[in-house]
Amino acid sequence: MQDSKTGRQAVVRQVLDKLRASGRQSLTAPEGKLVCDAYGIPVPQEALAASAAEAANAASAMGFPVALKIVSPDILHKTEAGGVLLGLASEQEVASGYAQILANARQHKADARIDGVQVQQMLPGGQEVIIGAVTDPSFGKLVAFGLGGVLVEVLKDITFRLAPASEADALSMLDGVQAAEILRGVRGGAAVDRAALAGLIVKVSELVTDFPEIAELDLNPVFATAAGAIAADVRVVVDFAPQPERYRPDTATILKAMNRIMKPATVAVIGASAEDGKIGNSVMKNLINGGYQGQICPIHPKAQEIMGRKAYASVKDVPGEIDVAVFAIPAKFVAGALVECGEKGIAGAVLIPSGFAETGNVEGQHELQEIGRKYNIRLMGPNIYGFYYLPSNLSATFCTPFDVRGHAALSSQSGGIGMAIIGFSRSAKMGVSAIVGLGNKSDLDEDDLLTFFEQDDNTSIIAMHLEDLKDGRSFAEVARRVTQKKPVVVLKAGRTAAGARAASSHTAALAGNDKIYDDVLRQCGVIRAPGLRDLLEYARAVPVLPTPKGENVMILTGAGGSGVLLSDACVDNGLNLMTMPPDLDAAFRKFIPPFGAAGNPVDITGGEPPTTYQKTLRLALEDDRIHAVILGYWHTIVTPPMVFARVVLEVVQELRAKGITKPIVASLAGDVEVEQAAEHLFANGIPAYPYTTETPVAVLGAKYKWARGAGLIA
Amino acid sequence: MQDSKTGRQAVVRQVLDKLRASGRQSLTAPEGKLVCDAYGIPVPQEALAASAAEAANAASAMGFPVALKIVSPDILHKTEAGGVLLGLASEQEVASGYAQILANARQHKADARIDGVQVQQMLPGGQEVIIGAVTDPSFGKLVAFGLGGVLVEVLKDITFRLAPASEADALSMLDGVQAAEILRGVRGGAAVDRAALAGLIVKVSELVTDFPEIAELDLNPVFATAAGAIAADVRVVVDFAPQPERYRPDTATILKAMNRIMKPATVAVIGASAEDGKIGNSVMKNLINGGYQGQICPIHPKAQEIMGRKAYASVKDVPGEIDVAVFAIPAKFVAGALVECGEKGIAGAVLIPSGFAETGNVEGQHELQEIGRKYNIRLMGPNIYGFYYLPSNLSATFCTPFDVRGHAALSSQSGGIGMAIIGFSRSAKMGVSAIVGLGNKSDLDEDDLLTFFEQDDNTSIIAMHLEDLKDGRSFAEVARRVTQKKPVVVLKAGRTAAGARAASSHTAALAGNDKIYDDVLRQCGVIRAPGLRDLLEYARAVPVLPTPKGENVMILTGAGGSGVLLSDACVDNGLNLMTMPPDLDAAFRKFIPPFGAAGNPVDITGGEPPTTYQKTLRLALEDDRIHAVILGYWHTIVTPPMVFARVVLEVVQELRAKGITKPIVASLAGDVEVEQAAEHLFANGIPAYPYTTETPVAVLGAKYKWARGAGLIA
Repeated sequence: MQDSKTGRQAVVRQVLDKLRASGRQSLTAPEGKLVCDAYGIPVPQEALAASAAEAANAASAMGFPVALKIVSPDILHKTEAGGVLLGLASEQEVASGYAQILANARQHKADARIDGVQVQQMLPGGQEVIIGAVTDPSFGKLVAFGLGGVLVEVLKDITFRLAPASEADALSMLDGVQAAEILRGVRGGAAVDRAALAGLIVKVSELVTDFPEIAELDLNPVFATAAGAIAADVRVVVDFAPQPERYRPDTATILKAMNRIMKPATVAVIGASAEDGKIGNSVMKNLINGGYQGQICPIHPKAQEIMGRKAYASVKDVPGEIDVAVFAIPAKFVAGALVECGEKGIAGAVLIPSGFAETGNVEGQHELQEIGRKYNIRLMGPNIYGFYYLPSNLSATFCTPFDVRGHAALSSQSGGIGMAIIGFSRSAKMGVSAIVGLGNKSDLDEDDLLTFFEQDDNTSIIAMHLEDLKDGRSFAEVARRVTQKKPVVVLKAGRTAAGARAASSHTAALAGNDKIYDDVLRQCGVIRAPGLRDLLEYARAVPVLPTPKGENVMILTGAGGSGVLLSDACVDNGLNLMTMPPDLDAAFRKFIPPFGAAGNPVDITGGEPPTTYQKTLRLALEDDRIHAVILGYWHTIVTPPMVFARVVLEVVQELRAKGITKPIVASLAGDVEVEQAAEHLFANGIPAYPYTTETPVAVLGAKYKWARGAGLIA
Repeated sequence: MQDSKTGRQAVVRQVLDKLRASGRQSLTAPEGKLVCDAYGIPVPQEALAASAAEAANAASAMGFPVALKIVSPDILHKTEAGGVLLGLASEQEVASGYAQILANARQHKADARIDGVQVQQMLPGGQEVIIGAVTDPSFGKLVAFGLGGVLVEVLKDITFRLAPASEADALSMLDGVQAAEILRGVRGGAAVDRAALAGLIVKVSELVTDFPEIAELDLNPVFATAAGAIAADVRVVVDFAPQPERYRPDTATILKAMNRIMKPATVAVIGASAEDGKIGNSVMKNLINGGYQGQICPIHPKAQEIMGRKAYASVKDVPGEIDVAVFAIPAKFVAGALVECGEKGIAGAVLIPSGFAETGNVEGQHELQEIGRKYNIRLMGPNIYGFYYLPSNLSATFCTPFDVRGHAALSSQSGGIGMAIIGFSRSAKMGVSAIVGLGNKSDLDEDDLLTFFEQDDNTSIIAMHLEDLKDGRSFAEVARRVTQKKPVVVLKAGRTAAGARAASSHTAALAGNDKIYDDVLRQCGVIRAPGLRDLLEYARAVPVLPTPKGENVMILTGAGGSGVLLSDACVDNGLNLMTMPPDLDAAFRKFIPPFGAAGNPVDITGGEPPTTYQKTLRLALEDDRIHAVILGYWHTIVTPPMVFARVVLEVVQELRAKGITKPIVASLAGDVEVEQAAEHLFANGIPAYPYTTETPVAVLGAKYKWARGAGLIA
């Protein structure tokens, strides 16, 4: 094992240089061993000993059991000569074995030249696992871990993390496979040495990070035992072709441009039109009717003015600075106008027009990218609906104006999904800070948005629909940082093979292995939404909920049947139904009928008056051991829906005044009046839903996922 | 192997009788072999041969490889005497082996008495699987199948079916485990003999069906090869305690009572009240305001009339027949009033009162059950909200009246869930035939409801919320029959351990192993809803959709992004996105812009006018190869939501007139106007949903699940 980082890198560099020179693409076994040794990846060791003491020391250093083999040019058939001993398990056995082998050799051939005895580490058996590394086109280097045999091959039970992986990442991989229990020891087997396995994963991840030309690496099998882990076989494939570099400006540069785009003093509309039904007309209307207070400059080859604003033939004719140009002209004119924007020093181009990569016109899009780089204009799109940034009253889009203000920033790769975001947000009164269309993502993408929204005080949650990540590595790095401050929710479309095929046919999106997305998003603290509606519901509810201080969730229900379904949902969403301490159980029992059920759920039963909801909820909020509350309401004449809502809010406000805030969600079972009660509760900080026991628990689960990832829960 | 059914049963009966006499509870290995032999369950065979020919024949009959062992009282150490040969693989090897063993024996001890040579079948290796049978308290005898080792022990990868299992059931079990692929041959292994494995499952299921006292049976491991399957070990545990019999009237008896309950000429309200806020008052109001046209008889100890109806002190005072009595009196008075109902010959008692098993008063509930049996009154509840049967204008409940008429019959075990059903149905305009509360299910349960709704022309789908099945076996038998005619959807609450605990604390429900519920419900053709909202959405949409004639599903979308998410949802819901034949692909291309994507999804792109939706949808409906269509709409100025809805309905109606009906669902992405469009489409036979790509596909998936189970899809 090589201690110094430079030293170990030098060893590997030498091996790889030799390989490159030879034109081979994979390492031989001895080369593999050299690389593993350099990085401290345990493979079977061997050493030549010239004495019993040397043999014993060598064996002790490499670990037992070992084999001893005579090394002599005069003895061809070692076994026949009594020159091989297997399975020696202690220093003593090795020392006496050494003596015996030498005696046997002398007896076999008295004058044989003897160079010594080779000590070889033997594999100890144990649980077979696979540790590897792959290169993903979007995420770059990833480490992989799985259990051997059918579990990987048939059940695809494997888990990935970005390399380099921390020890915590590596340990999480041991729990990240379905069959994780095996590693803890089942069927009478001992638990494996988790630290050793995690160490192995970390070392592999360092190796492939240090040497990007290592395209694939497989330790298969690795034998894991209670005493350690050792790789029986190593396979390394290299690829010396350099990876294309993607433009990655630094954070300050991104923010400088994004601030001009999101908070522009002047917006030009290229292709502005006074004619109804034209995109350039819709954009003008939305800017004006949306209440944008900056300067709007219509650009039109002939018009003197459009919608009361002075028009110009080119952006270059506009006096003063322009921050953003919204394009509403056919694809073929975009490149020319973009050059003019460049010459004008415009920070951002909102490229609504379609007709680029998504229609096969990859060259046309590439041309835009080159102009953008040359003049340092950030490009949004092409093939988008535009964007909204409500704090600037900015509706730079051809869609309908949008004005439900709040703190959720949303983005979508697809225009249709963008329209669904707008419709849902308006209908559900979800307050929004921004809605951004990313389309073909020729330049601006999710990591630019994350970088802006991270420091945007108007935004408290970021929700993104995406079909691919052009640069998953960059997204992951930014997301990892941002999720420490704000929840990030992602709907990854193209999860399935069929979905991925559909994605690649409608954009240039290349949807990757979904398991990689799943693992990496979790590694970065991103909440993954299983579907479109979930993305929208999370975006609406998560920012409303206070952050829980601990894992203890309690269900308080008037409907026992809701309690059962809410309990199921807690398990589905990884929430921990707290075990009720006896004193707390007794305290709840004082407020509920004798046939009600304490424990958790606390079932106050359906016929109770508002005071029972009031007393039990107050108790739940006042007790420090309870960290989150799920309410199950049952519509009765005794406690009608709006009465329930008011009682709940009274208690909540009373305790807020005392500084007590806990996340509360509610499931309302009842006649249509529960819709109004749910709306009233939601508007006052309690996400509440009629006719479902799943959604309230799912949004609470999303809040917990984020809070755990951000390290906010003890 | 025993051919005659009587013969094999006699063998097993003899073994079990001996066991019972001995007081043991499990079979010895020789007893297990007798039982297996009787039922043709292959276990290693053995035979005594007196000649080489006999040995060869015996080996051939039992299957190779075999072992030969000398049988002689004079030879103690068989191996030393050369009296054992292993792994003989053909008749020839056996014949010459026989001769050799005899020669060896003579050489060893010339005067040894030789009784012959034992031929023993050897295990062939192969894939280890587990086949077993268990006794479930609700479902009775079940067969189980899983792959051996960690797959069963750690991943719980096991599947169940009701016994007796048909060959089709048994074959479905081989596909019913996660690791099913292993049985088809992986890692160079051969595929196993599926017919042999299925045969083994069928035989085990027959054995435990014939002998209910066999509580548990395990064949573990069974070695499955390309040539057959053989059980290496058999374990049988018996339980001679008789199972309690549950009252199970025949179908005609059930229907006679159910018809009187659902379509009564006279309803008595026991505990009727003129006082607002009383349950007996709500029931009276609901009956009257609900428009019930039969006779309503309030029962009250003193009143002369209540709400304009003549009151009686007892049901026995009412002249003429009473069909149903609705109870609105405290628990302690129920038994007495029920006896009077019995004496009056009333068919059904709707037991609204709580205070029975759910509060620990098991005895009180048992008393009601005994009265019910004695007088042949069917009991609904206790601890329920009552029921609605809309074709009779009957609201026999204390909840709000309900009048959205349609064809979905719903039931719930819990009152809270019943209220959610009412609220959702009213809000979503889901037409309902019946809503029934089952509560403690002291008598009437889901199989009685299924039996009634099966023949009820007013009902076209049955949707049930349940926490347990008091008699899962009976439910399964009825459901299996009913699902051949009408879809049955079940929400099984208490899926998870936490949910099951909650269920047992609020009712007497004992929620069973969820995997068993899952497998048995599927075996019976029941659609399982994952959550409450799904149950409601399926109940609303499934009856609206025509039954598909085949598996080919096509997505037609204006929003490429919706197409991707809809494709994901198809995979999630087990739908088959058809591969487009080239001619059909070309036909679609004629109608869509050059940069649109044909294939499947067909992406017509967002900017298209109504005629593009019209032409492509018409083509999709006219082409026989497409069996179902999923529409993805993108709100644009060119084709606004209501225009889209009208165009779709025009095409659909045009083709309906030509006799073409196919299931169509729609996902609408757009601003709030899409809500109105979705409602209009739904009201006209096209389940349509705003802001979700998941729900439309899920309801189509539910329709497919039912149609497949009912054998309606080729």
